[in-house]
Amino acid sequence: MTAFPFKLAATDGEARTGMIETPRGTIRTPAFMPVGTAGTVKALYMDQVREAGADIILGNTYHLMLRPGAERVHKLGGLHTFSGWSGPMLTDSGGFQVWSLASLRKMSEEGVQFSSHIDGSRHMLTPERSIEIQADLLGADISMQLDECTPFPCEKDEARASMELSLRWGKRSKAAFGERAGQNLFGIVQGSVYEDLRRESAERLIETGFDGYAVGGLAVGEGFETMCSVLDAVVPHLPGERPRYLMGVGKPIDLVEAVARGIDMFDCVMPTRSGRHGQAWSDFGPVNLKNARFAEDVQPLDERLDCPASRDYSRAYLHHLVRSGEYLAAMLLSWHNIAYYQSLMARMRAAIAEGRFAEFRKDFNARWESGAFE
Amino acid sequence: MTAFPFKLAATDGEARTGMIETPRGTIRTPAFMPVGTAGTVKALYMDQVREAGADIILGNTYHLMLRPGAERVHKLGGLHTFSGWSGPMLTDSGGFQVWSLASLRKMSEEGVQFSSHIDGSRHMLTPERSIEIQADLLGADISMQLDECTPFPCEKDEARASMELSLRWGKRSKAAFGERAGQNLFGIVQGSVYEDLRRESAERLIETGFDGYAVGGLAVGEGFETMCSVLDAVVPHLPGERPRYLMGVGKPIDLVEAVARGIDMFDCVMPTRSGRHGQAWSDFGPVNLKNARFAEDVQPLDERLDCPASRDYSRAYLHHLVRSGEYLAAMLLSWHNIAYYQSLMARMRAAIAEGRFAEFRKDFNARWESGAFE
Repeated sequence: MTAFPFKLAATDGEARTGMIETPRGTIRTPAFMPVGTAGTVKALYMDQVREAGADIILGNTYHLMLRPGAERVHKLGGLHTFSGWSGPMLTDSGGFQVWSLASLRKMSEEGVQFSSHIDGSRHMLTPERSIEIQADLLGADISMQLDECTPFPCEKDEARASMELSLRWGKRSKAAFGERAGQNLFGIVQGSVYEDLRRESAERLIETGFDGYAVGGLAVGEGFETMCSVLDAVVPHLPGERPRYLMGVGKPIDLVEAVARGIDMFDCVMPTRSGRHGQAWSDFGPVNLKNARFAEDVQPLDERLDCPASRDYSRAYLHHLVRSGEYLAAMLLSWHNIAYYQSLMARMRAAIAEGRFAEFRKDFNARWESGAFE
Repeated sequence: MTAFPFKLAATDGEARTGMIETPRGTIRTPAFMPVGTAGTVKALYMDQVREAGADIILGNTYHLMLRPGAERVHKLGGLHTFSGWSGPMLTDSGGFQVWSLASLRKMSEEGVQFSSHIDGSRHMLTPERSIEIQADLLGADISMQLDECTPFPCEKDEARASMELSLRWGKRSKAAFGERAGQNLFGIVQGSVYEDLRRESAERLIETGFDGYAVGGLAVGEGFETMCSVLDAVVPHLPGERPRYLMGVGKPIDLVEAVARGIDMFDCVMPTRSGRHGQAWSDFGPVNLKNARFAEDVQPLDERLDCPASRDYSRAYLHHLVRSGEYLAAMLLSWHNIAYYQSLMARMRAAIAEGRFAEFRKDFNARWESGAFE
């Protein structure tokens, strides 16, 4: 067994808090992973990401294999050295972005052939090549199996065929990964919104055996209620002693509700993408700094957050920066958002550890529904 | 006499080093002022600007009067509070940018009427209004008289008429400014490339009496040699006991050659603008990080600079960021450039103080001409 030690410290209902111990540092769970697409968490310095409380970040295989190229990153010392992030790093398999960004995709049992959205060059991504890129060349601490991104909505027979392909690719990913000291491989549950498919996918992944289990194919348009139902159906079938990762999710309320259902890890571009579009996140939902109501508001965004971006700049100034299209607008709002997301995870971890997560969840839902940011 | 105390510590040839004491802090001269156009030095945090060694920054009246509006900045506590820069700040008069950015300009003896480049709204800038905005509303430590930007090239009679208008506006600026404790007003020498006009402009400005003297209307296409000739002709006629400010200049070589001619203060968008376009400055000239030669270069930009951007990131990574159009490219290169410019000023101050400026200048020119960045 090479899986990173995952020590559960407390559970509260289905929610759980603990620590994943890796050679590059400890990941406190539930954990939110900021997305460092192309070797940079957009508009932030890595120090800011670290100081905001992130223990682990995510890198995108698709972007990095195209630019600067996985072999080049390897030659330059691997993704940690290249990007200046020394903590744990998880990479995705590249599959999702081939599906969302690349053109001229040609799916086969072997893998997926596609054209780069940057220069049109042709590439092939197979389970084996994805593992080579992630684990050997980029040097990810946690690699993800290649899977097929089942479209939504999707008929059941199509969803089953896609799930079966992902299971076969999961086996090939596992075989290619082999046994590695200090690196882990996660499998991905698919099956669209069909609970029996999701359950079967989970059970058969566990037979193959991974170091952690992700739930993929959500946050693709199915809606909040459906996402929660799928989690309700899947999570009980995932092994309690391994980390559970909900991919590509989400808004703060999604994180709270997924933690309530037993999820341990998240990633999402939302905090940084929103930050580049003038939006700040809060317990009350998104706040659009472009709104004229902030033009003369001298309050900081959130003085309770231990982050200069949240504490040391007036909303009036942020409003001005957003309106003026200044770099500093994206820099400060992305920074605030990453700090807010990390603080939300820290508050959830504390609530679970202290046996008051149900209360936290109820209060959070009330704040979220009120939308009363002031 | 309300002028800030200007203490010359040493001279070496025409070059001089000293300190301007202001209520908000000391400005070491020769000084380079980073440009904070709209209340932010683009892509930098104010802490980084400070730590890079800048004692004073520049704010643009034109931009700020249009957005967020001078009255609004005043209501929000003035430009220092609004932008988070607590050190000395100089504002330009707005004239240059009305000339370069606004449309539907209508010049008169009274002032200049124009349309905002942002929303087309009509505005009037007079010497009195410019002083009100700079000194009363933004709260600049150093205000600049409104002047007319003489076009280049320009016939002599046109240059004279323009210079005469600027002199009359200088008098009105002075009258509007009055006597203020803790704030200063600088006059601006005009006269295009005509040495007799420049000399007359300087002499008549001195009759009016300002706290410092700027040389305007250069770096508008006249070329390096002509700029140096104009400085040779003008500087000897400026009072030695007051700061001399060369506006809107320039490249590192321009700064060295202007310091050699007795200039004390500079501002330019070049370090930040270049930084947003993938360019790093060095003693050897500009370095284009997009160039393929840097794709696998693991060296930092310049490890002798005490700036994380210059020291802690490989050129290969910077190359990747520039190619990928990442925010961090602009952030790191602007940071490096501001640190490089400040370090250049510090090296010049030390060379003057130690009586070896001629040698420094010669060595710098040799490096610049070699272009041998390695």
